[in-house]
Order: sequence, then structure tokens, then C-alpha cells
Amino acid sequence: MEILEKRIAADGEVYPGNILKVNSFLNHQMDIGLLQEMGREWKRRFEGAGINKILTIEASGIGIACIAAAEFGCPVVFAKKSKSLNLGKDVYTARVESFTHKNVSDVIVDRRFLGPDDRVLIIDDFLANGKALEGLMEILQQAGATLCGVGIAIEKGFQGAGDRFRAQGIRVESLAIVDAMDGERGTVTFRK
Amino acid sequence: MEILEKRIAADGEVYPGNILKVNSFLNHQMDIGLLQEMGREWKRRFEGAGINKILTIEASGIGIACIAAAEFGCPVVFAKKSKSLNLGKDVYTARVESFTHKNVSDVIVDRRFLGPDDRVLIIDDFLANGKALEGLMEILQQAGATLCGVGIAIEKGFQGAGDRFRAQGIRVESLAIVDAMDGERGTVTFRK
Repeated sequence: MEILEKRIAADGEVYPGNILKVNSFLNHQMDIGLLQEMGREWKRRFEGAGINKILTIEASGIGIACIAAAEFGCPVVFAKKSKSLNLGKDVYTARVESFTHKNVSDVIVDRRFLGPDDRVLIIDDFLANGKALEGLMEILQQAGATLCGVGIAIEKGFQGAGDRFRAQGIRVESLAIVDAMDGERGTVTFRK
Repeated sequence: MEILEKRIAADGEVYPGNILKVNSFLNHQMDIGLLQEMGREWKRRFEGAGINKILTIEASGIGIACIAAAEFGCPVVFAKKSKSLNLGKDVYTARVESFTHKNVSDVIVDRRFLGPDDRVLIIDDFLANGKALEGLMEILQQAGATLCGVGIAIEKGFQGAGDRFRAQGIRVESLAIVDAMDGERGTVTFRK
């Protein structure tokens, strides 16, 4: 998606260690106009898939998922990363390792909010090693829900997780796929 | 706001200890249509205030803030609750005690995303003891930004923080104000 790639090239920050920060427009400050364009693009790509729920994971996926859901006209469920005192015991859970935060957390969704009637689009800001996505897919399996596809803002293509999921027949629609990063020069190369 | 009060009465869960859970429509599963109505209501109430940025705090404020921002046509900044490895050192910080999670955390906003030109609406899902709000206001002061007002989905009026802020001249627009909760009967009483 050209508008997102241009924005990453202009405002993304590249650091050694394959770190790409998009804090100025995607996951600390959020450009809502950009998010709306992204939501419309996913809506176009998943037209006819019968999606009736969007699943994401806190925290930085929530804004993207909500704005996309406004296009799809469906509710959002966000998986919580640790057991809240205000959450009941009747939950689906999966363990997820965070690449960004270098920790492992339990990801939780209340059983009342996912079930066999749900046709789900998973949305997240980044796809890197795929651990968060695997956790969300495990939760969908526990719920008996149907995974219609995955919408990712920025896929780190060089880490291979996106292609691994695609090879399994999962529809992964990433709006920008970064195939290489140069931490010295601060540049990214997008997949054609 | 009648539609929100009715939804709380129908789907909110009241427990002893003044706990009100709205997980089915506001902060685990999110009814985006309801959030859009709430966003339009805040837009109407803050018409002419010149708001050009919305500030919220992760995680459950993010969805509400983003959908509201689509109505205001402005970006959202969300304060992060703990120091991310991917966040630079140049940040505003405040300490916030969480009523829900029974802990204290540092709340952080990158200095690049708030400054003297910003006319800010703070949005959050709950206003209970006001600690989160005080932290966000402290950050706005550090930034030299203008606080135009506060939009709250559900204010626990009986805890007094909302009225304390109003007495200080801060415009707090809560869409539902709960003046009493009965944990035994599972009912809430709204302010007229």
C-alpha cells in the first residue's frame, strides 16, 4: 500500500538490530486519517469474506483494529496481555513471547466474546516472528471460531513468519512488507 | 447520554466493592457503533473548542479515543504505562496508581508528540478516583499544551473526582455518571 510505504520511508525510524519504530503515526501517536485508509484497504481486500468480528491484541493493535472495524461494521475484541483483576475466570488463554518487550505473557480472551459463529479477521500493527499471531490463532481454535484472514500494517518479511503462515493457507494481507532494513543508513526496502 | 446509560443498565455487570464491568461492549469487546455515537456526542459538546489532539492512556482508552478522533479529524496520542524498550529517553512522565489493577506505573509520552501548539481533549473509558487523569494532566503541563477538556465514557460520580476537577474549572464531559451502585442487586443509579 503505497501511502503506508511512503509514510514509513518518511517518518519511520530504523535502528541497528532490525528495529523499526513508527511511533509518530502508528503506535504511540496515531494518524487517524492514515488508519482509515488502511481500514478501507483491508475492507477491499477481504470483501465477501463474511467477517463479523475483528480480533487484536493490546495495546498498539487496538486503534488500528477499531478504525478498521468502523469500515467493516463489526465489533472488536482485544486480547489482554495479563490477567486483569476485573476479568472473570472463564477465558481462552495462550502464551505469547514479545519480540519488542523481551518477555512472555499470557494472552486472554473472555469466552463470551468468541465462539463458533464468529468469522474473524485478526488485525495487528506488526508481524515479525509471528508469536503474537500464533497466540491469537490458538485462541480462535479454542473458541471454534473461523479465521478468515489476517490484516497486518507492517510485516517484517525477512523474518519469514508471514510467508510461513501463507504456506499454511492462511490469508495474510500486510499493507507494507519490509524485506530488508539498513540500520546504518536508516533505510528500508519494501517487497514489490 | 441515554444510549450509553441503557447499555450499561442492560449489559454492565455490577459486583460488590463498586466494581462495574463493561467488558462486553466497551473495554474487552468493543461495540464500534456505540463508540461512534459517543464520539459524535463529544464532538457536539466540544464544538468550537479548537481541539487538535486527543490524549488517552493504554489500553482500554485507545479504541474509544481513536473512534472519537475520527469524528474530530485529529490524531491520537496514547500514554504508555511502562517504559518500552522501543521508546526513546526524551519523554514526559507521571506516576499513576491504577484502581483496577492495584498497582503503580510510570506513564510516558514522547516529547515529540505533545507541545505548546496542542489543544488537547483527554479521553478515557472510566473516571473513578481520578489518578489516571491527574497523570495525563501533569503530562500536558510538562508539554505546555492546552487542556480543552476531558471526555469520559463512565464516571463513578460517587467517588467525587469528576466534581473535584469541575470545581477547578476543568470541563469534564462524562457520557454516563453513576451516582450509586448496588452490588447485591446488580443495579446502578445514574445522575440526572
